[in-house]
Amino acid sequence: MSDQNPIFIPGPTNTPDRLRRAMQVQNLDHRSRAFAETFMPVLQDLKPVFGTVDATTLIYPSTGTGGWEVAIANTLSPGDRVLAARYGLFSDRWIDTCKRFGLRVDVIDCVWGDGVPIAEIEAALTRDKAHEIKAVLVTHNETATGVRADVAGVRAAMDAASHPAMLYVDAVSSLASMDFRMDEWGIDVAVAGSQKGFMLNAGMAVLAVSPKALEAHRSATLPRAFNDFTDMITANQSGGYPYTPPLQLIFGLRASLDMLAEEGLEAVYARHFKMAEGVRRAITALGLNLVANASHLYSDTVSSIYVPEGCDGNRLVAHASEVYGMSFGVGLGKLNGKTFRIGHLGSLTVPMMLSGLATIEMALVDMGVGLQLGTGVAAAQDYYRSNQAGATKYLAA
Amino acid sequence: MSDQNPIFIPGPTNTPDRLRRAMQVQNLDHRSRAFAETFMPVLQDLKPVFGTVDATTLIYPSTGTGGWEVAIANTLSPGDRVLAARYGLFSDRWIDTCKRFGLRVDVIDCVWGDGVPIAEIEAALTRDKAHEIKAVLVTHNETATGVRADVAGVRAAMDAASHPAMLYVDAVSSLASMDFRMDEWGIDVAVAGSQKGFMLNAGMAVLAVSPKALEAHRSATLPRAFNDFTDMITANQSGGYPYTPPLQLIFGLRASLDMLAEEGLEAVYARHFKMAEGVRRAITALGLNLVANASHLYSDTVSSIYVPEGCDGNRLVAHASEVYGMSFGVGLGKLNGKTFRIGHLGSLTVPMMLSGLATIEMALVDMGVGLQLGTGVAAAQDYYRSNQAGATKYLAA
Amino acid sequence: MSDQNPIFIPGPTNTPDRLRRAMQVQNLDHRSRAFAETFMPVLQDLKPVFGTVDATTLIYPSTGTGGWEVAIANTLSPGDRVLAARYGLFSDRWIDTCKRFGLRVDVIDCVWGDGVPIAEIEAALTRDKAHEIKAVLVTHNETATGVRADVAGVRAAMDAASHPAMLYVDAVSSLASMDFRMDEWGIDVAVAGSQKGFMLNAGMAVLAVSPKALEAHRSATLPRAFNDFTDMITANQSGGYPYTPPLQLIFGLRASLDMLAEEGLEAVYARHFKMAEGVRRAITALGLNLVANASHLYSDTVSSIYVPEGCDGNRLVAHASEVYGMSFGVGLGKLNGKTFRIGHLGSLTVPMMLSGLATIEMALVDMGVGLQLGTGVAAAQDYYRSNQAGATKYLAA
Amino acid sequence: MSDQNPIFIPGPTNTPDRLRRAMQVQNLDHRSRAFAETFMPVLQDLKPVFGTVDATTLIYPSTGTGGWEVAIANTLSPGDRVLAARYGLFSDRWIDTCKRFGLRVDVIDCVWGDGVPIAEIEAALTRDKAHEIKAVLVTHNETATGVRADVAGVRAAMDAASHPAMLYVDAVSSLASMDFRMDEWGIDVAVAGSQKGFMLNAGMAVLAVSPKALEAHRSATLPRAFNDFTDMITANQSGGYPYTPPLQLIFGLRASLDMLAEEGLEAVYARHFKMAEGVRRAITALGLNLVANASHLYSDTVSSIYVPEGCDGNRLVAHASEVYGMSFGVGLGKLNGKTFRIGHLGSLTVPMMLSGLATIEMALVDMGVGLQLGTGVAAAQDYYRSNQAGATKYLAA
Repeated sequence: MSDQNPIFIPGPTNTPDRLRRAMQVQNLDHRSRAFAETFMPVLQDLKPVFGTVDATTLIYPSTGTGGWEVAIANTLSPGDRVLAARYGLFSDRWIDTCKRFGLRVDVIDCVWGDGVPIAEIEAALTRDKAHEIKAVLVTHNETATGVRADVAGVRAAMDAASHPAMLYVDAVSSLASMDFRMDEWGIDVAVAGSQKGFMLNAGMAVLAVSPKALEAHRSATLPRAFNDFTDMITANQSGGYPYTPPLQLIFGLRASLDMLAEEGLEAVYARHFKMAEGVRRAITALGLNLVANASHLYSDTVSSIYVPEGCDGNRLVAHASEVYGMSFGVGLGKLNGKTFRIGHLGSLTVPMMLSGLATIEMALVDMGVGLQLGTGVAAAQDYYRSNQAGATKYLAA
Repeated sequence: MSDQNPIFIPGPTNTPDRLRRAMQVQNLDHRSRAFAETFMPVLQDLKPVFGTVDATTLIYPSTGTGGWEVAIANTLSPGDRVLAARYGLFSDRWIDTCKRFGLRVDVIDCVWGDGVPIAEIEAALTRDKAHEIKAVLVTHNETATGVRADVAGVRAAMDAASHPAMLYVDAVSSLASMDFRMDEWGIDVAVAGSQKGFMLNAGMAVLAVSPKALEAHRSATLPRAFNDFTDMITANQSGGYPYTPPLQLIFGLRASLDMLAEEGLEAVYARHFKMAEGVRRAITALGLNLVANASHLYSDTVSSIYVPEGCDGNRLVAHASEVYGMSFGVGLGKLNGKTFRIGHLGSLTVPMMLSGLATIEMALVDMGVGLQLGTGVAAAQDYYRSNQAGATKYLAA
Repeated sequence: MSDQNPIFIPGPTNTPDRLRRAMQVQNLDHRSRAFAETFMPVLQDLKPVFGTVDATTLIYPSTGTGGWEVAIANTLSPGDRVLAARYGLFSDRWIDTCKRFGLRVDVIDCVWGDGVPIAEIEAALTRDKAHEIKAVLVTHNETATGVRADVAGVRAAMDAASHPAMLYVDAVSSLASMDFRMDEWGIDVAVAGSQKGFMLNAGMAVLAVSPKALEAHRSATLPRAFNDFTDMITANQSGGYPYTPPLQLIFGLRASLDMLAEEGLEAVYARHFKMAEGVRRAITALGLNLVANASHLYSDTVSSIYVPEGCDGNRLVAHASEVYGMSFGVGLGKLNGKTFRIGHLGSLTVPMMLSGLATIEMALVDMGVGLQLGTGVAAAQDYYRSNQAGATKYLAA
Repeated sequence: MSDQNPIFIPGPTNTPDRLRRAMQVQNLDHRSRAFAETFMPVLQDLKPVFGTVDATTLIYPSTGTGGWEVAIANTLSPGDRVLAARYGLFSDRWIDTCKRFGLRVDVIDCVWGDGVPIAEIEAALTRDKAHEIKAVLVTHNETATGVRADVAGVRAAMDAASHPAMLYVDAVSSLASMDFRMDEWGIDVAVAGSQKGFMLNAGMAVLAVSPKALEAHRSATLPRAFNDFTDMITANQSGGYPYTPPLQLIFGLRASLDMLAEEGLEAVYARHFKMAEGVRRAITALGLNLVANASHLYSDTVSSIYVPEGCDGNRLVAHASEVYGMSFGVGLGKLNGKTFRIGHLGSLTVPMMLSGLATIEMALVDMGVGLQLGTGVAAAQDYYRSNQAGATKYLAA
């Protein structure tokens, strides 16, 4: 965790200097015009990042995890039925949150490493003639397995079943990094956080809420106060906030949105693909295996990788941290010990990525894994050399 | 809101450079030892600030307002009865939060400007032979009226009534600024935030929870997930966090606790009294009146002041902001338009305080109020001159 | 010296957050295009601040004091004669520098508090039929006495004497704060620093050099290497630097020039006059006297003020620093002990200025001076109230 | 030059966050006790870094290059004879500076890539029976060639010749990175800068001056004012400064000295050797050649490397900067185009170093050089793996 080594956890990410400076703003009166003048355009400029025109964007002093709770507490009532697939730790936790709030959750259990089970979802919805299911929950990017969900496919399944359920998507570790289309995919609530694709400090849940979800909000009776949509929206309309806002993060988000717009979202996605693909080439060259079961499932923000037989993933990650000062992700949930993860989202350059690959190679050899040092690096170098565009310009500040 | 003019709102406060620098730490892996090594002592060192040995301290990515919700959702069940006095906007809001969570609230309505009604509380508790009331809610410092509650008196009343209810205290705008004694006063849940006495950015709710409240937590059935005590405490015990922590604020809190300890809490309280007393002398000299109805009620963190006849408090505050670049608080709730507020908590020096008084004098004259410029300043200067100790050393660096 | 109290020394000045952030840029390769792309426009954009089209602007890692040496070492030869008036500490020091470099200095000694002696300069030049005098040295703003020199008058005197000497002006504590017109006044070398009107950290001498002075440079034989014009100009022409540049200060200067341009130089000068005039009203109301002997001599960046009989200026300044955490300037040179100085240049607002006045009032009373607290503040408030434009907008960041 | 990619130029170096924060101090009154209390210990704590007990340490607002001039202008007189070897660009420039100041320089011209010519120095001194030579000038680390001079050997040669000349050493790119022993090696003036081993921003020359050199200063007649030893030492003795000091850099130096002391100088040197040795292993594995002609000459702060036939060093460096956002050094002086340089001093970790090596490999291949990607990285990984101690701890925070 030297301040000079990048971190390769799937969030919080490395923060560019420009954003660090943007978050250094002094406290000011959040009831002043100065606050409103920054805050209102931020809410507006969040919309293209979500791929929405119609949705209302909201910011809470919380995290992505808290955002799940904001989503359900505002739009559902005790005893409501929701449908969710469990294919990793974060989809599992969201299900748990639903249960704690007294929702009935129809869980589709999947193999970790598989994607979202579109056919099963369609089948379940089709079976639900009474339309008891109020919402379908999808984790767009399963940080535990490095798997990306086909949200468009889920939408198609819902349409095929002619089911009126709302679609909730956890976009915490995908938004502003991978293609996301709220309106096109018919998403009703999308949940993100400040410390992933926005490259900021942790401390904000960022949501987009469709008109349909706002309509549902009116009759939803789960308890909420701090998280209440109505209080927030009412205050926001005049540039205000229902309590003390996370001022520095909002100013940081202003700068983050500027950076994303300057680069262009398509270029941001392409850059993330490029970074990720270099990592995958390296992994393959080293003879290691991804948890994701098919290439169309590969996440561009995190790769979850099986450690070789005899190597403990936790020891590997601890060793890299202690000896080389570099942070990788441990395996989560049932993959703990069996995998390690390389986060490759947010502010990363080719040289940074190569430092991560060179370091994990050393750490693997230190753990007794028989691999040829430099092999993975070379595969990534070869790929990056042939795909030079885009990745360096972006992060200068 | 020039970055060179102090703000005189009762939070967020001015942030000393030392704390601004402390919050500039880069993102690091919150599952690493480096995080635990900072975080665990922070939880421990919060205890003396709350005046507790026995309580468990907790930090949530939220605000003080969110902290109220954390308090009740973890310790109460739907339909539980609580007793609360309403003597300002913030006590009112906490009552509202309770109602939204399905609690029955016995409200004692008071005159705004009065303190917490100890006799009525004792009477209400005495009447409650069945001990249905699970908790008494007290706002230690009513930011809307500039009134401090006599929490020790409430505890005495509860004891006199031999009532087993828990005592919850909103210490958001008092902790680390005014005398606070959790254990001595028999408080069960105390709620604070990062952006007041701790002088940091907004974004954290900081709580202390008594063993009795933790016991109550076990059987409390209000829904919670993100806010859950058990998840938080379990993770904290090994230096972990149940989701992404507000890292920069935690590092800032480390430095804030160091600053408070270096000055000494008694000196911190004395300094706040001194700052506040100078303001009160100025207010009196200017012929203005405080909302607080008696001197023993005076808050040392905020003064709520009636504007003279014919002067609109909101226009006054807007004018001071636009013309002089300085932020004061508007009147809140039923006092809106009729008062303005001077926050005097956190990082303030005598010269800063005098700049605020000189500025509000000009703004008042600009509004047509007939007062002699310099009169209030002179009264404050006279007081501060005769009470020189303490206030400058603290905030250097 | 609390980080929250402004400083009232005539430089270094308070630094706005925007400039503090601008100076936080990480080290980069000064031989890279990125450096050139920032540096070259900075040199260009300095010109309007000096009021020049024709001059070449230069930046040295040094201070204003070092800038004097850069000026003479590049344009004069051993034994050259220069004419200079001594009316304060800084004019005295520049004379001393000339002597150390083997120049012959014709010194006109003046009363401290008087301005530049135009008639004597004209007389001296007229007497110099052989045109031995190579340069006339003028300190535009005598920081020791708070006196502004009439540079246009000096130019007129030189013209009246039909003397070909060059005109060198020390603009260290005036540039970017008070009206300065290099071309119109026929100045050949103007010397400034980064920590005054530019509001940055100390560490740069900033010069503007006329074509005539560059011509003189070719035959000037005083030794120089680090300070050499030719090396610097040659490197600058392609965006380079002859050695490692003060990178962070150059990036800070970029932002400072932007701020000055956004406000407009005329507005900057008007703001400085306003700040200064409020101080002078306060001084008068307190019954104190300025060192400057006539109102047309008043500096808008610093006021030098006699302490009352029986009060020691050094003790006064030390007391204000120790007890109130606020820095004023001590009396310099022969005025040491007899005066104190209030700097009012750079990033200051009306509230900041009033905090300074309120503080010095208290400090004076603490020293036993019999004055009515608030009197000076009231005079300044009255003046500032009636002249509200301009001063707050500027420094927001 | 992304703010996320390290720079690999031999200064300015990467700056750890701890030092960036330390340089963020606001302007304060340099005539105050607060300044003196920081400044005086800094001067004292510089001594162990220079390896001296007897010398006086001095700080000028300048750069290392300016420091050469400070050294000679204070201790020599016009026409004095000095002896210097020219074996790279920086030794050449120092000779040029001497000539500009009217010194007679006996130059020993060497092959670039060779070290300091001890035998020739001894011979020259032995020939100088009249002891006309007042000083011997040695560049400890030739940044252009990556060669370290044997200063102890020069001292031995001087002793063998029984010559009383003073010994001046340019330690700009070696101090606080490679072993340096001012007293043991009998050095009279040592010159360094802030932006190399101290890892700060550029803007300070840092010198250590022996009692013998101070004695010489008394009769030395080269002109100086800003640079004068006597003015500086007199002011420093009471914690003062003869003009406005580079405040932020001095506070940064305080933190830098703390970091160096916490790690221990021996560990700092060992770390630099380790970083450098990894680079050299990579260079060798890639079939490239160092400019340094023998292994005992290898610099631990910079490696100067011949580009392969047909590859232009300047294009290579420009390409790495433009395509990969990473800065390497170009060839200097007569090596321009024929070499590139990898700086490896200051704040660097193993992962950072590997990112530099991986990047230069890609850039070389992009230039058409036929090498196997990953080869150099692998050699460095192998070396670093086997030498894990020390390098990560240092740079945290």
